[in-house]
Amino acid sequence: MERWKREYGLRVSGRRKTKEMTIYMNKDELLNKAVKPAEDAMKLHPFYRGKVEVTLKAPVRDYNDFAVWYTPGVAAPCRDIYEHKESVYKHTNKGNFVAVISDGTRVLGLGDIGPEASLPVMEGKALLFKYLGGVDAFPICLDTKDPEEIIRTVKILQPSFGGINLEDIENPKCFYILERLRQECQIPVWHDDQQGTACVTLAGLINAMKIVGKELSNARIAMIGAGAANVATLRLLLAAGVPPGNIIMCDSKGILHRQRKDITEKHREKLKIMELTNGEQKTGGMAEAMEGADAVIALSKPGPDTIKKEWIKAMASDAIVFACANPVPEIWPWEAKEAGAAIVATGRSDFPNQVNNSLGFPAIFRGVLDVQARTITDTMCIAAAEELAACAAEKGLNPEKILPTMDNPEVFPRVATATAMKAIEENVARLILTREEVFSLAREKIGRAQEQVRILMEKGIIPAPGNS
Amino acid sequence: MERWKREYGLRVSGRRKTKEMTIYMNKDELLNKAVKPAEDAMKLHPFYRGKVEVTLKAPVRDYNDFAVWYTPGVAAPCRDIYEHKESVYKHTNKGNFVAVISDGTRVLGLGDIGPEASLPVMEGKALLFKYLGGVDAFPICLDTKDPEEIIRTVKILQPSFGGINLEDIENPKCFYILERLRQECQIPVWHDDQQGTACVTLAGLINAMKIVGKELSNARIAMIGAGAANVATLRLLLAAGVPPGNIIMCDSKGILHRQRKDITEKHREKLKIMELTNGEQKTGGMAEAMEGADAVIALSKPGPDTIKKEWIKAMASDAIVFACANPVPEIWPWEAKEAGAAIVATGRSDFPNQVNNSLGFPAIFRGVLDVQARTITDTMCIAAAEELAACAAEKGLNPEKILPTMDNPEVFPRVATATAMKAIEENVARLILTREEVFSLAREKIGRAQEQVRILMEKGIIPAPGNS
Repeated sequence: MERWKREYGLRVSGRRKTKEMTIYMNKDELLNKAVKPAEDAMKLHPFYRGKVEVTLKAPVRDYNDFAVWYTPGVAAPCRDIYEHKESVYKHTNKGNFVAVISDGTRVLGLGDIGPEASLPVMEGKALLFKYLGGVDAFPICLDTKDPEEIIRTVKILQPSFGGINLEDIENPKCFYILERLRQECQIPVWHDDQQGTACVTLAGLINAMKIVGKELSNARIAMIGAGAANVATLRLLLAAGVPPGNIIMCDSKGILHRQRKDITEKHREKLKIMELTNGEQKTGGMAEAMEGADAVIALSKPGPDTIKKEWIKAMASDAIVFACANPVPEIWPWEAKEAGAAIVATGRSDFPNQVNNSLGFPAIFRGVLDVQARTITDTMCIAAAEELAACAAEKGLNPEKILPTMDNPEVFPRVATATAMKAIEENVARLILTREEVFSLAREKIGRAQEQVRILMEKGIIPAPGNS
Repeated sequence: MERWKREYGLRVSGRRKTKEMTIYMNKDELLNKAVKPAEDAMKLHPFYRGKVEVTLKAPVRDYNDFAVWYTPGVAAPCRDIYEHKESVYKHTNKGNFVAVISDGTRVLGLGDIGPEASLPVMEGKALLFKYLGGVDAFPICLDTKDPEEIIRTVKILQPSFGGINLEDIENPKCFYILERLRQECQIPVWHDDQQGTACVTLAGLINAMKIVGKELSNARIAMIGAGAANVATLRLLLAAGVPPGNIIMCDSKGILHRQRKDITEKHREKLKIMELTNGEQKTGGMAEAMEGADAVIALSKPGPDTIKKEWIKAMASDAIVFACANPVPEIWPWEAKEAGAAIVATGRSDFPNQVNNSLGFPAIFRGVLDVQARTITDTMCIAAAEELAACAAEKGLNPEKILPTMDNPEVFPRVATATAMKAIEENVARLILTREEVFSLAREKIGRAQEQVRILMEKGIIPAPGNS
């Protein structure tokens, strides 16, 4: 950390210290910080050659066990499922299998790099699913970009899985694909770049509003960027009670309003947004959108100069700024603060208030799978967001702590429980369990996953880096 | 074992004793033996709720590792694969992932029970793949029966996988699907009910012929049954040098000969067989097919009365009988012996000479994956069969030991090596390794898989049955 100590820059929290420490970095150094994980990644990926693998969930005491797990014994559970289809959840791991599916068309900030090049991300996602949620996620990269083929393939894959996590599929087709699959699948389908980001963003916003003493129900919100994440966040904000007229969204051409002639049928989501939002029918660009707003939620072009200080100065008092582009936020947090922002959140782990999807999807799926939910509704997302917000609030809110951190072991089982209980309440759960049952299942499964990893590392089945 | 001791019946080998023991069973008891694994399966499947799971192959030392395995670090290997597609084998587990794919149309002896009901079998197969071959196989059950959709789906799934194992797909469409996929895929595609059974059958036949002092190159062979397994076995026998005219195959209507008018274009494989085999153009049924044959290979209707004693009496001297229907062979082994058979093999683990696919596919895929073979040729299957035969021969051949057993730890790495070296010789391998390198890789990966299971059992991550 010493080498980052400089005279100019920003005060951030030490990553793994309990006491805050002052670290100063200039812009180049901040940009270069992303170099270290990349260097490590290029060494460690070839060393491990994969981040997830398949292992046994059932014992092999001796070779006679094969007669139980395979022929002839296995015919009996097969017959049982043939007679009672729901028994597939009893005799197999379907209920804990999730497919992480991508066509590789919008991978991280890299764009359309294709399915093979997206596999490291999907394996990484599967790693997070298991470690944080106890979910057996499997990476499936599709060799097609055609929306209809993607939809057909996902539907055909359903029998093995308890849920589907779509990932890194380009916009606008991702909206259509998700909508179709949510309607046509028997198992929950989730697009983490939409719903996952929306959920964690809402959680942060709930606490930020609490700190500045404002209400979501009459907040004025500017949204910069009309991609998958922000469009889904907008939908969730509406479901959470923000008046549609109070929201103004900008795409790359400026504010979405009803006079915009450049938006075609292809962008159905934007057409809906033009109808619904921007009560005053403001026109212009980001400056006009942000003027007088209580909060700005930017999920747009990497900065640091995408959002100007003067636009923040023109926001309402105690402005809330979510500048979540990666790897560089739309405006540096310290500049936003200097311009008067009361609270700043970004997508980076080295600044305070990271809006991090990993706080959401592992727990949400844990809850969804444990009650065999048929879908994941927006109200379930809101319940998850509220629980995330509550986890942080209980630890004591302050402008640099609006979200919980991943190392709080209660967060994941609690969010799983909130999601599952809402599924039961909304009649989309196949299993009815008590709150205590869901919580203890979630805690046990997540704990087991982490214990499994610990043991495999300790015993050298997962070797330490450098030892082959 | 005491309860199976009776006055009538057959002498079989004790399953896990080193010395042979005499156990007598009557027919009902033999039939009932299948009940015990089924009873165990119905208790143990719901206890474990799945036989495979996903776990981490890479360490999580602390939460900072997520920046290496996921954003931002993961972007670097993604970019590397985008620039050099083959690097996907370096940065991910693609090279060890195999999809076990079924549409559930011909599951065990149960027929078309659908994709959900086939999942216990596909999970069981994945368990065998991992434990015996160190292969990360994932069960994928498809919600379609349409051959074109199956082909399209498998092709779309390729980016994540190093190989495809088709399983329990009905005949005749399985021939067409395999042929198309072998032509059109960039990764090896295998249908275990065809090639796997053929490979292990050939291995047994090689040793059986050796024991009776005959040569495959002029053997006369009757084949009972024209399903996936026997049609593939026939193809492999031809590739191994059996003269086509010396083979006579029967389907359920009798001998395949050129005058058969009931075979339509739908059964292209049978039309080819009618052209190629049965040099004398014999007509009739099983009795005529078997008359004078050196060996009969039956993979047809469960017995025990499918094949008659008198048909075996009419075979050549030192007749070889493979009666491989499950769960009950086409003729009881002792009846075949009484009728003069010198060697009898079945599909059951409780009789001598089990023709068991598990001796083949885990090792073959191990070898194929370790040299990144683009396909699995028939000559690779023959090399695997010859090595299997050699493993048994080195332990000392006798009429009740024509195949190796799974508990010989050398078998799987040796068969993997034979397969891989043939792939290199035939220029279908992407990686060129030495025999020693392949063998030691295979032994290490299989050993690691079994050690992983042992540790997970010892530490209670895989609990003992009955303890939750």
